[in-house]
Amino acid sequence: MADTVDRAKIQEEIKVQGLVVRKLKTDKAPKEQIGEEVAKLLALKAQLGGDDGPKKFVLKTPKGTRDYNPHQMAIREGVFGKIIRCFKRHGAETIDTPVFELKETLTGKYGEDSKLIYDLKDQGGEICSLRYDLTVPFARYLAMNKVTNIKRYHIAKVYRRDNPAMTRGRYREFYQCDFDIAGQYDPMMPDAECIKIVAEILDSLDIGDFVIKVNHRRLLDGMFAACGVPDDKFRPICSAVDKLDKTFWEDVKMEMVDEKGLDPAAADKIGEYVRFQGGLEVVDQLLKDEGLQKQKNAVEALEDMKMLLKYCELFGVADKVLFDMSLARGLDYYTGVIYEGVLKGHSHAKGASDSEEQVGVGSVAGGGRYDGLVGMFDPDGKKVPCVGVSIGIERLFSIMETKAKASNSKVRTTETEVMVVSAQKNLVDERLKLCAELWDADVKTEQSYKKNPKALTQFQYCEENGIPLAVVIGQSEIEAGIVKLRTVGTREEREVKREELVSEIKKVLQELNSATSS
Amino acid sequence: MADTVDRAKIQEEIKVQGLVVRKLKTDKAPKEQIGEEVAKLLALKAQLGGDDGPKKFVLKTPKGTRDYNPHQMAIREGVFGKIIRCFKRHGAETIDTPVFELKETLTGKYGEDSKLIYDLKDQGGEICSLRYDLTVPFARYLAMNKVTNIKRYHIAKVYRRDNPAMTRGRYREFYQCDFDIAGQYDPMMPDAECIKIVAEILDSLDIGDFVIKVNHRRLLDGMFAACGVPDDKFRPICSAVDKLDKTFWEDVKMEMVDEKGLDPAAADKIGEYVRFQGGLEVVDQLLKDEGLQKQKNAVEALEDMKMLLKYCELFGVADKVLFDMSLARGLDYYTGVIYEGVLKGHSHAKGASDSEEQVGVGSVAGGGRYDGLVGMFDPDGKKVPCVGVSIGIERLFSIMETKAKASNSKVRTTETEVMVVSAQKNLVDERLKLCAELWDADVKTEQSYKKNPKALTQFQYCEENGIPLAVVIGQSEIEAGIVKLRTVGTREEREVKREELVSEIKKVLQELNSATSS
Repeated sequence: MADTVDRAKIQEEIKVQGLVVRKLKTDKAPKEQIGEEVAKLLALKAQLGGDDGPKKFVLKTPKGTRDYNPHQMAIREGVFGKIIRCFKRHGAETIDTPVFELKETLTGKYGEDSKLIYDLKDQGGEICSLRYDLTVPFARYLAMNKVTNIKRYHIAKVYRRDNPAMTRGRYREFYQCDFDIAGQYDPMMPDAECIKIVAEILDSLDIGDFVIKVNHRRLLDGMFAACGVPDDKFRPICSAVDKLDKTFWEDVKMEMVDEKGLDPAAADKIGEYVRFQGGLEVVDQLLKDEGLQKQKNAVEALEDMKMLLKYCELFGVADKVLFDMSLARGLDYYTGVIYEGVLKGHSHAKGASDSEEQVGVGSVAGGGRYDGLVGMFDPDGKKVPCVGVSIGIERLFSIMETKAKASNSKVRTTETEVMVVSAQKNLVDERLKLCAELWDADVKTEQSYKKNPKALTQFQYCEENGIPLAVVIGQSEIEAGIVKLRTVGTREEREVKREELVSEIKKVLQELNSATSS
Repeated sequence: MADTVDRAKIQEEIKVQGLVVRKLKTDKAPKEQIGEEVAKLLALKAQLGGDDGPKKFVLKTPKGTRDYNPHQMAIREGVFGKIIRCFKRHGAETIDTPVFELKETLTGKYGEDSKLIYDLKDQGGEICSLRYDLTVPFARYLAMNKVTNIKRYHIAKVYRRDNPAMTRGRYREFYQCDFDIAGQYDPMMPDAECIKIVAEILDSLDIGDFVIKVNHRRLLDGMFAACGVPDDKFRPICSAVDKLDKTFWEDVKMEMVDEKGLDPAAADKIGEYVRFQGGLEVVDQLLKDEGLQKQKNAVEALEDMKMLLKYCELFGVADKVLFDMSLARGLDYYTGVIYEGVLKGHSHAKGASDSEEQVGVGSVAGGGRYDGLVGMFDPDGKKVPCVGVSIGIERLFSIMETKAKASNSKVRTTETEVMVVSAQKNLVDERLKLCAELWDADVKTEQSYKKNPKALTQFQYCEENGIPLAVVIGQSEIEAGIVKLRTVGTREEREVKREELVSEIKKVLQELNSATSS
């Protein structure tokens, strides 16, 4: 407990913090921001202890994280179901890895983003960090188990100490849905399948029009070389280009020249190239570009791009694919094709706002080829070529949630089929026996946890929760060896012999289901 | 990089550590232990950097954690499927909470086990810890969202810095499968349902005979009072009783007397009571016990126990339930009925070994009533009564894995239905088009990622991976507008018109499925 001097100091801080909160409320500041300042206020009050009530802590989840309530979970499981269905349709198996890795496993893989890695406290023993993505653990898994080819998906949470923008679906704890193909195969065949998968998933979720931008890391490297960027500046300059979907060219150029020491003339040349976007015709045009023709990297990457676009045509997704020279992707480990799925209705104008919340919200999938990552883990440096895609599921949840709200349709959060209802008092024993009978027959069944619930309350529960059937028992039914089976929707009731109850319920449920789906 | 003096020191340490590893290998020490020492050796070598090859890190998962390969995942998903099916059968909905909580959320909830909590590093901002179980986050969720009744399940990973015994299914990162009922209901009705659920799940997994031990925290408290244990020693003495399933009474008594300062006479009285176990007859016997009769807690708890056993009888699980006065459960927060599911074939003799790996392995489910936990989070101390059960899934995995190995049956890790096979060269374009057609019709389809794969290799792939159908194309088939549809199992082939392919595949798959299941 705080001593007297401390208390006075804390009380002063509480006064100041109280003013901060009041000001924000007056200014109608964002709810999130007010929430954070209120949390600080409560934390200060908590330090004073007992005087402010029995509880001394702040009742919240950590910054940038959230709970999912049953309604959100129902939506989330629907989205996961569609995504997993697609991954399995393409023959993928699944693996799982720990939520934390040895810190050194993550070191040197994420470039400038490494500062966002969460570390575990050193409590004696190994030094660990929460996983930042699923790709590096996948590469570690392949090297450790000497797996040279696999097609796997992995759906799990990853962690980034970023500035959260939760209203935009950006969290510090969030799901990734990854699909990757590892193995030495013919050029562009697995790469094109990843793009097809993004198209299938975004189509199946029915959330509007989208485009899948594609580019090639070796084309970027060749382009940098053609523009006179020194070798050691390729990665930092690439990381500046990556910001082009969020900021004006002028700001990106400033970063290149002022922060990263690039010759302004080189930056201007880059500025010319990154404007190119389109289909096969643009690739052909660039193949004739004098600067790029001298760069082996660029020419080979453009040939790759031609093949990729052709395969996308054969897969029937060419109309969704856009070759875009300004696409760079932030991560260090890409070595070949890179791509990004963007929702059309949701992308914002470049530099439209200085608030981070406004930018990049349209991007819902991304990935690329990373042929060197597994080799970084192999003791002999043995490489396993990989290409993969990650679905940005949180943003998709936000959209689906908004959609569900707008459509006003009720999402069921349970699957209960039958409610066992007692119409009179003192029937709890019979109800328990009946429930056990139905559970043992794999019928999804609920009952009231009151010994003597009111009949009306029980029927209301059915209606509120969308339970289609009620089995009603009274003393006379028990004596006659029957039950009443009630269809909740129509309130029709009929008598069924006790020994025929299970088969009758299964029959009626089947009828109801086929009526709904037809 | 280490400097010269450091290098010499490290090289000395490497020499010593090398000897340690060699000694362990000579002694045929457990693989796990050798692995850990080898890891230390590699870590030392890594510090020397470049001289020891290109890689400078240890290729492993953190201590007490593991990867799941596709085969293990297939088994895990089978077990999860059965458990979720049971939870849904009982009308549960699901929620999710973050993997870490504010540290203060976890403080004061776990008694002596609090030392096992993983903390995140203080990187500025809030101080957080990885969740230790799913119950405390659930209580925090209820209080925070003012939920007063819900029946929810939650399947997620929890974290404990315990000494791992991985061969026995004890990890530092492991899944819990929790089912809880929150709400003010009539006595023992939700409690009995939790026990029924444990019985259903253990039955459905078909892993041998089991028993569900039940006891009551207030009976323990009443018993402690009757034995003359001072109030402030109830929790520590309870935590000593909890060790009775793992150690001899003599050792437990020593902990009570020597470590926890209990009067030896009181300990002896406890020793008498904890021997009681059985059914209703034992409850009745204890209701007549003079010492307990004076304790309101004990009498009320015994009345509860009578009702619980009666409800278990009505649910048809009385033969699986054993009232056992020695059951205590470690956690602080229980306030009423407690229970534990134990596999009979897997429990070990008390004190059979001093190795921690040998003990408590039979316990695969546990839970109880915790009426005070939500109130600890509510600003007004408002209570929400709760009762729940947690399935110890890792141990169940280990058993199912061993079973799968023993039965030698092949578990498929993918669900691919069709392989698109080219019988000649230069058919990659046709193959891609055909794959897209099948994927778009929701047929699970794979193809080779080689442009010109050998026919034999493609057929072998089908057989190795259990893919039931192959669609075979050659130049002549393409010209005739047909494909060959091959049943992989029988090697039968027949010609199908291209436009009828999808419907024909769906028909054949249905036939194959019904043949397998009949």
